[in-house]
Amino acid sequence: MSELGVVVTDIERADGAVIDELGTCGVATSHEAAGRVPGLMDPSMRPIFAGASIAGSAVTVLAQPGDNWMLHVAVEQCEPGDILVVACTVANTDGMFGDLLATSLRARGVRGLVIDAGVRDVSSLTDMGFPVWSRAISARGTVKATLGSVNVPVVCAGTQVQPGDVVVADEDGVLVLPRPRAEAVLIAARKRIAGESERRARLAAGELGLDIYAMRPALERAGLKYVSAKER
Amino acid sequence: MSELGVVVTDIERADGAVIDELGTCGVATSHEAAGRVPGLMDPSMRPIFAGASIAGSAVTVLAQPGDNWMLHVAVEQCEPGDILVVACTVANTDGMFGDLLATSLRARGVRGLVIDAGVRDVSSLTDMGFPVWSRAISARGTVKATLGSVNVPVVCAGTQVQPGDVVVADEDGVLVLPRPRAEAVLIAARKRIAGESERRARLAAGELGLDIYAMRPALERAGLKYVSAKER
Amino acid sequence: MSELGVVVTDIERADGAVIDELGTCGVATSHEAAGRVPGLMDPSMRPIFAGASIAGSAVTVLAQPGDNWMLHVAVEQCEPGDILVVACTVANTDGMFGDLLATSLRARGVRGLVIDAGVRDVSSLTDMGFPVWSRAISARGTVKATLGSVNVPVVCAGTQVQPGDVVVADEDGVLVLPRPRAEAVLIAARKRIAGESERRARLAAGELGLDIYAMRPALERAGLKYVSAKER
Amino acid sequence: MSELGVVVTDIERADGAVIDELGTCGVATSHEAAGRVPGLMDPSMRPIFAGASIAGSAVTVLAQPGDNWMLHVAVEQCEPGDILVVACTVANTDGMFGDLLATSLRARGVRGLVIDAGVRDVSSLTDMGFPVWSRAISARGTVKATLGSVNVPVVCAGTQVQPGDVVVADEDGVLVLPRPRAEAVLIAARKRIAGESERRARLAAGELGLDIYAMRPALERAGLKYVSAKER
Amino acid sequence: MSELGVVVTDIERADGAVIDELGTCGVATSHEAAGRVPGLMDPSMRPIFAGASIAGSAVTVLAQPGDNWMLHVAVEQCEPGDILVVACTVANTDGMFGDLLATSLRARGVRGLVIDAGVRDVSSLTDMGFPVWSRAISARGTVKATLGSVNVPVVCAGTQVQPGDVVVADEDGVLVLPRPRAEAVLIAARKRIAGESERRARLAAGELGLDIYAMRPALERAGLKYVSAKER
Amino acid sequence: MSELGVVVTDIERADGAVIDELGTCGVATSHEAAGRVPGLMDPSMRPIFAGASIAGSAVTVLAQPGDNWMLHVAVEQCEPGDILVVACTVANTDGMFGDLLATSLRARGVRGLVIDAGVRDVSSLTDMGFPVWSRAISARGTVKATLGSVNVPVVCAGTQVQPGDVVVADEDGVLVLPRPRAEAVLIAARKRIAGESERRARLAAGELGLDIYAMRPALERAGLKYVSAKER
Repeated sequence: MSELGVVVTDIERADGAVIDELGTCGVATSHEAAGRVPGLMDPSMRPIFAGASIAGSAVTVLAQPGDNWMLHVAVEQCEPGDILVVACTVANTDGMFGDLLATSLRARGVRGLVIDAGVRDVSSLTDMGFPVWSRAISARGTVKATLGSVNVPVVCAGTQVQPGDVVVADEDGVLVLPRPRAEAVLIAARKRIAGESERRARLAAGELGLDIYAMRPALERAGLKYVSAKER
Repeated sequence: MSELGVVVTDIERADGAVIDELGTCGVATSHEAAGRVPGLMDPSMRPIFAGASIAGSAVTVLAQPGDNWMLHVAVEQCEPGDILVVACTVANTDGMFGDLLATSLRARGVRGLVIDAGVRDVSSLTDMGFPVWSRAISARGTVKATLGSVNVPVVCAGTQVQPGDVVVADEDGVLVLPRPRAEAVLIAARKRIAGESERRARLAAGELGLDIYAMRPALERAGLKYVSAKER
Repeated sequence: MSELGVVVTDIERADGAVIDELGTCGVATSHEAAGRVPGLMDPSMRPIFAGASIAGSAVTVLAQPGDNWMLHVAVEQCEPGDILVVACTVANTDGMFGDLLATSLRARGVRGLVIDAGVRDVSSLTDMGFPVWSRAISARGTVKATLGSVNVPVVCAGTQVQPGDVVVADEDGVLVLPRPRAEAVLIAARKRIAGESERRARLAAGELGLDIYAMRPALERAGLKYVSAKER
Repeated sequence: MSELGVVVTDIERADGAVIDELGTCGVATSHEAAGRVPGLMDPSMRPIFAGASIAGSAVTVLAQPGDNWMLHVAVEQCEPGDILVVACTVANTDGMFGDLLATSLRARGVRGLVIDAGVRDVSSLTDMGFPVWSRAISARGTVKATLGSVNVPVVCAGTQVQPGDVVVADEDGVLVLPRPRAEAVLIAARKRIAGESERRARLAAGELGLDIYAMRPALERAGLKYVSAKER
Repeated sequence: MSELGVVVTDIERADGAVIDELGTCGVATSHEAAGRVPGLMDPSMRPIFAGASIAGSAVTVLAQPGDNWMLHVAVEQCEPGDILVVACTVANTDGMFGDLLATSLRARGVRGLVIDAGVRDVSSLTDMGFPVWSRAISARGTVKATLGSVNVPVVCAGTQVQPGDVVVADEDGVLVLPRPRAEAVLIAARKRIAGESERRARLAAGELGLDIYAMRPALERAGLKYVSAKER
Repeated sequence: MSELGVVVTDIERADGAVIDELGTCGVATSHEAAGRVPGLMDPSMRPIFAGASIAGSAVTVLAQPGDNWMLHVAVEQCEPGDILVVACTVANTDGMFGDLLATSLRARGVRGLVIDAGVRDVSSLTDMGFPVWSRAISARGTVKATLGSVNVPVVCAGTQVQPGDVVVADEDGVLVLPRPRAEAVLIAARKRIAGESERRARLAAGELGLDIYAMRPALERAGLKYVSAKER
């Protein structure tokens, strides 16, 4: 149960080089490297344009539905390399974010937005190249009336996010990695990537995964049977 | 409760110059300018291709699910600058509209389609550049068997539409403005746009919304507290 | 009730020329030509990138949710011109397929994937131009632990698919045609296409569907009334 | 586009005897009697307890999501025999109504609530026997901060409602009948009910609907074929 | 791809005693006994009242959405002990079935209805004690205009149903068992039930499933670790 | 990001008397008393039978979808007065819990189950009077193959739950209160209840909330206007 009416300043962030390299690994590889523990947001979170791929430190916002007051408060807490992560106190699709806020975030070096609600000015945001992952696109604007919080732990799209956690987002979705685990995940991700390029070459040459991964004995033990359609 | 089996002819439309300028203002700005009253369709209504942005006068259709007979009837009632708005008597995702109907509408100068159902021939419609906002894409075709109505009041994607209302549609969604209010909304929209370009420049220069909109005193009165993570 | 733990080999396929021409006809036309009987998958099945349009023979997979073991088994059963069709034993959105499996399928001449679950590595798949229709995009990876089956009848996205059925997929959705009916459907589809180009020209010239299709008498018999808004 | 900040007083209501008898006819019969035109709310509107069946005059509320201020305003506009009908400016499931408001409505003779949002205190409301049809059950409370309107036209659960319209609600759903049409619908409903009791007796005696409704010739004309499974 | 416009007569049914005993085993046990292969309908299929539990032979209907003509045709094909199973050619929630059809089915000894659409007259059906599993409750009535089929294979709520398959339905959902497998499933179900009563007694006495099922060694091998909260 | 493969023992619980009294206050009142901060689970979590109302200490489970192995592990960690709270690593509706597990939990004095997945044996659970709140009812059984965790922090139905948190559940939904805040929330809840009984009496006597809560001046300041329908 997060507090309301609080802005936490001076949050810790992970090492910038680790964050940047996790971004190049991407969401799918980083999630595998993390051991497929929770941390992936719900797949209803989609990017507003294709091709975006970012990683950064989470500045979290707990907002009231239909009220983007706290987003303005959060801008001041952002540093270059951050990603703004917005959760709502109740499910909501209002367009809580548009091109003016994006202009402000970009001026502070923020890399993108992850919002468990709606976004608007999608055409302008696309022209700006400002990446957003959201649950909905909606022109419905918001008021600035009720307090939420900034940089408290939130649940965003089904996933727990602590301020300062590493967020990786691309076309496959949005992943949250706890700050203390970021470096270990990166090391595991590098190993996966190294192994994959060799396997990709063998698969491209026509070799079967059944053989590369030596699956046949296990499949046989599990009882898999081959039957010809001609004999049925 | 709309009537079935009726085609209303000779509907009134708003001033063409007003409509066109509302189109350049876009959905988000026009909705704010209208005072955020109802009029935005449900965000499940999405454009079939990116970049489309239109405004026009609503020619309304009340169709039976899986039956596009009334769309053929409605074509005859369309004039240059119109937008066809199709509601169904019950929720439906069938592909009630395709490239032949689009060819016919384009021949009459119609600017696009808003349909609370499905659409098909999406690839051809994209090649034609004929914009459609729909709830679904579905190849499932339709019959021509049961009467609906044309140019009666309908509820489309949760929003009341009167024939002759001004419809604005872009990547942020679909907005319906009552014909008698169109000009007043345009005047308010112009003011918003004027103010926004100055604010955008200040935000881009790094000034904070907290200061530009003078939010700090109100936030303090509401009880917002700042706490350093280092002191927690 | 499909069997688990079975791989059926040597399935029959439809004539390659018939399949290819059905692909050029597209989903909407082929579905109409088939008499609008069941066979269209649920419209929640969407392509991961625009413009893809394929037809091929179904190699079916019945997979356990979150387990892509059987996809590796299925690769070996694929021949050039096939489409892999994956159903799950329970609703699931995990990313059961990524660029390594796509590389392997492409090496065997497979034309694309239809999966009633999630897919990942969407950016790489788009770069490869490997078309996928799926219910979701999700980075969540899978295990290889439990047997399913290959080339048994499955229900995929609400539609029955027999191994060897003809699958047509484009931006309008995914259609399944029983192998024995493929040629008859193609003949009917050719007729529809022939008729449509003439109608398209007349509609583009401004002629009304009401007249081309001679709808006016039927509408009058059904009781359609025209009323002027000025007289209401 | 409804106005915000307005309370309309002195609305007209339909004849009380007509309303009451429509209540005994029920939703399904009244909807058929009305000609199956629009007027049925979306089936996601469900009663909070079984067995409730009411009819009354609509007092409409247009509320802001998560804000039940206007419900308190609306109570004063209610008369004995009314049904409160609450629409929101945006989709919402908050529990905007509980046992205190029900106590207040009951004191004024209101028969029930129809709300396109959430309701709470469901256990107490059930004990009171105060019927509610809602989209959701949610304990989430609301603020009293922003103006909506009372007795303006609203779209509730996909259906247009004018203040003073007749609302019929039972386990089959919620129906809205325009006030001027209520009496005509009742007359048609009476006829349906008269015919149904005779048909029910014949069906209970084993006679087939195929014969009672003389469907066989039409089915034959439509081309229906009978084939024995033994000959397939 | 099922045919349209066909009624198959003289279908085969499973042994009545087998069907009845499967009904007493219930859906959950029968599904486990069948090896958890496909056959369970989607959990959105819910009974209209609590406590119903039936088993019977499937008479299948493929209906057009919003059209219950084929249900009348199907009644004639029903025998005592049957369950009517209705699939639609496209997703639909209309109330295709009400108390008159239930009266007719009951007169023929039919045990209940499973319908992948809506049902109405829920209050009367409950009074009659006629069990129905459906996707929705809706007062929206239907026309009788377009042919479907009776006793062809259908996909209902995501599950393949052949005419004559055994259907088991209770509060846990709806299960379809292929006719030829019914007896084998029953034998396996009896074994499960025999084992369960002993286990239930031991669990009620406080013994742990960890010990009864001897799970501890496998959990240890899988690497499960116990850590006291006091040492964290 | 919770750990997998860990069972935390010896968790702290709140004071039993506080928990029990929060149960009598109920979900709606306790949520208001807590200041309407996050903590309410998504309204898709519903009780399997009416009338259940419990409070207890959370023993948390993080389970793999379709795998209930960890539930058996968790039973051993339960004490009298606990509530088992089950989250999954990915959205799932399988019936992970049935009457055998309920028998085991009851033997240990557990008060109920909250599960962000499916439940089965609903009829038996109802007969036992064992309360369950779940997202779905499904007969689909589960395997026991992959490790999750017990008594780690989880996100269940959109809400963060720490082991030992106080869970209150009734017909209005499921509320999670952090253990350290339970007593303060109880004190606030008592005050609300005291005030409500007086207000309920005044409302029942016909006094208006507008007057009891002195809303009229604020409404007037906000600009609310009264207009007679007769003057429109």
